Amino acid sequence: MNKIRITDKMMKNFDYHTPTRLVFGRGVVEKLPEVMKPLGKRVLLTYGGGSIRRIGLYSRVKELMRDFELFELGGIEPNPKYAGSVLDGVRLCKKERIDSILAVGGGSVLDCSKAIAAGAKYDGETWDLIVGRAPTKAALPIVDIMTLAATGSEYDCGGVISRTETNDKVAYVSPFLFPVCSFLDPTYTFSVNSRHTAAGVADAVNHVMEQFFTEPSNSVSDGFCAALVKTLMKYAPVAIAQPENYEARAEIMYACTFGCNGILGLGTGGSVWPMHAIEHALSAYYDISHGEGLAIITPHWMRHVLCERTLPRFVSFGINALGISPDFPAREIADRAIAEMAAFFKKIGAPMSLREVGIDGSRLGEMARRIAAGGCLDAPGLFAPLGERDILAILRAAL
Amino acid sequence: MNKIRITDKMMKNFDYHTPTRLVFGRGVVEKLPEVMKPLGKRVLLTYGGGSIRRIGLYSRVKELMRDFELFELGGIEPNPKYAGSVLDGVRLCKKERIDSILAVGGGSVLDCSKAIAAGAKYDGETWDLIVGRAPTKAALPIVDIMTLAATGSEYDCGGVISRTETNDKVAYVSPFLFPVCSFLDPTYTFSVNSRHTAAGVADAVNHVMEQFFTEPSNSVSDGFCAALVKTLMKYAPVAIAQPENYEARAEIMYACTFGCNGILGLGTGGSVWPMHAIEHALSAYYDISHGEGLAIITPHWMRHVLCERTLPRFVSFGINALGISPDFPAREIADRAIAEMAAFFKKIGAPMSLREVGIDGSRLGEMARRIAAGGCLDAPGLFAPLGERDILAILRAAL
Repeated sequence: MNKIRITDKMMKNFDYHTPTRLVFGRGVVEKLPEVMKPLGKRVLLTYGGGSIRRIGLYSRVKELMRDFELFELGGIEPNPKYAGSVLDGVRLCKKERIDSILAVGGGSVLDCSKAIAAGAKYDGETWDLIVGRAPTKAALPIVDIMTLAATGSEYDCGGVISRTETNDKVAYVSPFLFPVCSFLDPTYTFSVNSRHTAAGVADAVNHVMEQFFTEPSNSVSDGFCAALVKTLMKYAPVAIAQPENYEARAEIMYACTFGCNGILGLGTGGSVWPMHAIEHALSAYYDISHGEGLAIITPHWMRHVLCERTLPRFVSFGINALGISPDFPAREIADRAIAEMAAFFKKIGAPMSLREVGIDGSRLGEMARRIAAGGCLDAPGLFAPLGERDILAILRAAL
Repeated sequence: MNKIRITDKMMKNFDYHTPTRLVFGRGVVEKLPEVMKPLGKRVLLTYGGGSIRRIGLYSRVKELMRDFELFELGGIEPNPKYAGSVLDGVRLCKKERIDSILAVGGGSVLDCSKAIAAGAKYDGETWDLIVGRAPTKAALPIVDIMTLAATGSEYDCGGVISRTETNDKVAYVSPFLFPVCSFLDPTYTFSVNSRHTAAGVADAVNHVMEQFFTEPSNSVSDGFCAALVKTLMKYAPVAIAQPENYEARAEIMYACTFGCNGILGLGTGGSVWPMHAIEHALSAYYDISHGEGLAIITPHWMRHVLCERTLPRFVSFGINALGISPDFPAREIADRAIAEMAAFFKKIGAPMSLREVGIDGSRLGEMARRIAAGGCLDAPGLFAPLGERDILAILRAAL
């Protein structure tokens, strides 16, 4: 075998596997019965509030699934709660000997369903799976129909679960949590209002950025990231101005789906997703919208971590993802990139400060301590390590 | 459900599924036994000429697979032949009750192994599966270790098989042909000479172009295509000048793997891969290198199909994939794009004319007739339909 000198700057090894089938486009939900059939007769239908009824999807699904035994868990909340929907779902699956889960809704419904799917196949406490105290060894098969373009949960094996009583918000990842099949019909997102459309896009843009701002990176990953950022920034204002513009909704849904499934970070240095870590504390303490929290944090995180050492990645982001002219001096490209991201979030109507979403300064210190205690944001070798003081500075700047 | 007006310009529906696991990087082959174990004890090891022995991979594989019962099919030729390696392999699999296939080599070895895998599970004539006269309903599981970056066969469900006696070269596609796992160690490509490195890159660049030049397209696909073209064009000269440059070999291998698995064409109008159709006739008649044939054909195809109607895609390709300034007039951007592709192939040492690879004018008419009779290159609605006269004109220009 060839002997080569291994350095930190080389493309990292990776082990990548995304077995989910994506069925994308208008009317594709017709294929639902054919997809569900091999997964068993007893199906738990999970969903959130009333939106799937309002757009006629609930009754369409019932009709398509008429040959199955359907059980229902509705009312799953944004930032899905362990003590609420997750445990209810696990109990229901066990009691009714559910074969598979059909999640209809946005990322919260699907994330919740993933935790239920694993909990249903586990004899102990589901929380132990979520926090990794016990290994996940199985899960019920999950199929989803997405009604919101945002988290990319439809093409990844993770989910985020909140535990209100302890202000915990935990990312739960296991290869058993890949959906078997995701149905992505952009027309189901026509009725998403501008606020949620903006929050979804902010979430997806941030997913891409968390994966872009790392070292080493590589040319393929950089180009893939740039493609998604450009697409999201181009079409978000269109979808907000014309909610039934198919092209805009389809481009956004497509970009969101590829934003979080690991493909953007192949071979790169990876990241601990610092903006997500900070936002998860915000929404754990205040139950704000995840995408809105990210829109607020992103420019402040950028400003805080920009320095001589991180400058080249900012320059690459500015040129490749934002189309800023390479003729400007490096520092100006970086400053422009930060200003453009802030301007973009403002343009799509995302909140620009913590106060706007009802967060005051009273618990910033407590949150910063908690985030820092999470323990990985300042690990050596990170692109931009953050200690408690850094986190607090970012939160204060975002106030 | 929402009613929308469906037009030809909208993003197309798609159904996408790539279940192959990619294990990428230096030394990853250590995981081979663990990956092969669940697939059964009796393994057919397939490979080509002597290169895997020369780089020490043959003995490494034998060592790693010492707990399996290994059978061997070596000597698989470029443009793998039905009457040769495919039928030999099918017979061997049936006789020895093979459980799985381990393909070690380049695209030809893997393509051949895919046909063998399907033939081994079929009672009739394997050729009927290849040409689609009989449906493929099963195949042996395949694992591969790639030693050449080119075809992307390691991440797709297709293969190309030649039948010399009839000058047939057929693309065989079935979802059962996805490898279970592909091992991609860029160091195994260090010893690939400049000629084969160039041919591999030409193949991959052409895969991207076949998917880019279509209508409708979309922002995500365009960006993904641009990322791969840029990467391949940047790193090919580096790998040729410095064969053991890990970064260059890794970027090329990564880009090739994503060049052909369908991800670049999601939601687009798709294509019948006209340059491939033309090249397949060349290598069916003359057994030339596939990548070299494509390098010769590509600029001539571009020149031939450039017209008022196709101009916008050329402009987009020039700006996004090649970085040509958008300030030039559209037609000049297109002309520059064609010239840049030709210059690139020349720079990496690919042949620039049919004569250079030993093809004279004597059978061009016969080949054009044969290609046109293939029947789909002039289908209505194609991006750039080609009749027999068009094909002949392209071949003549390439002479």
